[in-house]
Amino acid sequence: MGLVIGIDLGGTETKIGLVDEHGKILNKTTIPTLVSRGREDVVARIANSIHNILDIANEKDKVLAIGIGSPGSIDRDSGKVLFSPNFPDWRDFPLASMIRKHTGLETFIENDANAFILGEWAFGKYKGSKHMIGLTIGTGIGSGVISHGQLITGHNGYAVELGHIIVEPNGPLCGCGSHGCLEAVASATAIVRFAHEYRKRFPDSAIFSSEKIEAKTVIDAAKSGDELGKIIFDRFIDALARGIGGFIHTFNPEVVIVGGGVSKAGDFLLKNLRERVDRYVMTSFKGTAKVDLSDLVEDAGIKGAASIVFYRKR
Amino acid sequence: MGLVIGIDLGGTETKIGLVDEHGKILNKTTIPTLVSRGREDVVARIANSIHNILDIANEKDKVLAIGIGSPGSIDRDSGKVLFSPNFPDWRDFPLASMIRKHTGLETFIENDANAFILGEWAFGKYKGSKHMIGLTIGTGIGSGVISHGQLITGHNGYAVELGHIIVEPNGPLCGCGSHGCLEAVASATAIVRFAHEYRKRFPDSAIFSSEKIEAKTVIDAAKSGDELGKIIFDRFIDALARGIGGFIHTFNPEVVIVGGGVSKAGDFLLKNLRERVDRYVMTSFKGTAKVDLSDLVEDAGIKGAASIVFYRKR
Repeated sequence: MGLVIGIDLGGTETKIGLVDEHGKILNKTTIPTLVSRGREDVVARIANSIHNILDIANEKDKVLAIGIGSPGSIDRDSGKVLFSPNFPDWRDFPLASMIRKHTGLETFIENDANAFILGEWAFGKYKGSKHMIGLTIGTGIGSGVISHGQLITGHNGYAVELGHIIVEPNGPLCGCGSHGCLEAVASATAIVRFAHEYRKRFPDSAIFSSEKIEAKTVIDAAKSGDELGKIIFDRFIDALARGIGGFIHTFNPEVVIVGGGVSKAGDFLLKNLRERVDRYVMTSFKGTAKVDLSDLVEDAGIKGAASIVFYRKR
Repeated sequence: MGLVIGIDLGGTETKIGLVDEHGKILNKTTIPTLVSRGREDVVARIANSIHNILDIANEKDKVLAIGIGSPGSIDRDSGKVLFSPNFPDWRDFPLASMIRKHTGLETFIENDANAFILGEWAFGKYKGSKHMIGLTIGTGIGSGVISHGQLITGHNGYAVELGHIIVEPNGPLCGCGSHGCLEAVASATAIVRFAHEYRKRFPDSAIFSSEKIEAKTVIDAAKSGDELGKIIFDRFIDALARGIGGFIHTFNPEVVIVGGGVSKAGDFLLKNLRERVDRYVMTSFKGTAKVDLSDLVEDAGIKGAASIVFYRKR
């Protein structure tokens, strides 16, 4: 295999790296995305950064292709960004073909949640596994599944939206219009919302001594024994575990890998999550699926984007 | 292609048929399973019936192989029945190799829920679809999924158990030990249980004028406007639709096909189910998945069993 350019496209900043087949990043750069300057401008600056990386690395002749991990809905066959909340005017934008025109390199695109699980498949602790589920837990919940060695994308390319499985039928309203989606009760956003909602009952919670309340604030409070922290963390972990239990019954995976901002809660999260998932897995499935955190934390986005190429050319 | 023997193994009776590649049944027989006589006896009588069918049909030289649809947990690689509630002493029973020894024909085994969706894939209204979900709703809920043309069986062969996805977190206890599994609220068993539970509040319901209360009794009552019938049917359809909505978000299938005893409720069930599923599917998935009832009702079990062979030799 050769080298690959991975582009981790984000609403605020975009990371671009030169990655080898072992997931080693040989060179990288971060640029502000500056969506407001218009999409052609964004593309031109990304292309410019790619040229700089290729020049410095002096590896141009070995570069195989480019992989782009994009937020939102993409069409992997035409290489278009169909719709992304982060890029309001990018509807049906042929991002891959424009990057290809600028660089002369074959370019693949995938949504960032699928790029996450492909990164795990290509470079992570469980690399090469044919049955893996990936969840990225941050502002929302992204998901990607490899089953029988195949990235599950479905009939129209819309699979897998595990963040919009209902885990609390009468739970909080989700951005998608349903009540109690996994994303509405087990994302970082949900954790912070719960803290504000419970404030009147627990005004003296350690959570409110922080200037800015983030998911980490709440999880740290739970870890140190704060009562409200424990209540919110328990609701979060219970919903997440019930969801994951269902995904295990659905896909019978070898491993469920959790990434995204919330996964930085580390061992405390993992220990509690494993115990709770075990409660929601039926006897015949006991011990069949590992639950783990991503170990690709640094530059996971670039690695995930690069892995799209390794997957497509497998 | 040639002809195939399909064996629909049941707790009470076993159906055996000679099936062509279009799903046409050329010859068939039904024998009592008589589990109590011991497994060797069951196998010998099944083998005997196969010989009779082959003799009558005079087609032996064209018969490709045998497919067995079995209840319970099976190992498709070794051809064993691992465990089946219907056959208590069949633990790790090498059913396929024994049938093979008796008949000289290659023999494949699959659980009956997977055989159901393979039957749809081979012979149903949506035959050849690469993205289908099958649910058989009867005493329990069986499920099978074809995604990207592949029967999803998972890392250990245990996928897909959609009947054990939790749709009512504080709902009735399921046989698996969890609360509110789809099977615990949306099977025929659940419908009948609800009727008994609600009896004190609705003693005059039309449901209780039947000598024996079955799921059909309750659904017929709902259809004719009986209040309790409507309450139970609404709870059933809501849970089922919420489940199916989640499966659509998971697999992005072309079609979800419902079979099993409850599907005999026909158009009344289908109309209500379609409306309710639509409520639980998010905007980007609207209209992506058809919901339909199986059209293989007659001898569906034999056809499903035969389709295992056509799938394995595809």
